[in-house]
Amino acid sequence: MPPNNLFAALPPAGPDEAVETLLARGAVRIERIVSTGQASPPGFWYDQDEDEFVVLLAGAATLSFDDGRELALRPGDVVDIPAHCRHRVDSTQADPPTIWLAIFHR
Amino acid sequence: MPPNNLFAALPPAGPDEAVETLLARGAVRIERIVSTGQASPPGFWYDQDEDEFVVLLAGAATLSFDDGRELALRPGDVVDIPAHCRHRVDSTQADPPTIWLAIFHR
Repeated sequence: MPPNNLFAALPPAGPDEAVETLLARGAVRIERIVSTGQASPPGFWYDQDEDEFVVLLAGAATLSFDDGRELALRPGDVVDIPAHCRHRVDSTQADPPTIWLAIFHR
Repeated sequence: MPPNNLFAALPPAGPDEAVETLLARGAVRIERIVSTGQASPPGFWYDQDEDEFVVLLAGAATLSFDDGRELALRPGDVVDIPAHCRHRVDSTQADPPTIWLAIFHR
């Protein structure tokens, strides 16, 4: 069962980010992602077929884009990442964990 | 310009909820809604053509559904409201304001 509260029932920290699908219906998938210090591997860029609208709910993170843009995110920040907009996660706060709400759509 | 941070640039309290569209693309519309004590009028039920996935980000609210379910929402709570699931907002906290993220989709 996905959580009814995004700040509750946090999975234990592990080597990977914890991804839970909250809703997947039609053209939309909504995930809670809990990061505990993970970052994209050196030289790795996400290049997604779906648009992603992401909200940083707790913690902190830095993103960069292959056009050179860098974003330092704090709770409440939102980022619209269109499909094939190459981006990477440079850092995430480990403790307290970083909690994201990610809305993937087409 | 919609806000880049959901907790920032809150609109001044007025008689109505303040609705800002953060993204509208394809089958998805994402809104920030700021409530300052508003509630649905007596006997009013929302009966929407779109599915709505709503997150209470700050404040507090109570929802009810025409099957008798009642939900008291606190920050981080999420609710999946399928299209034509009749519901109403019984109360919202006025101060500090209640902040919602609403994801409408088809």
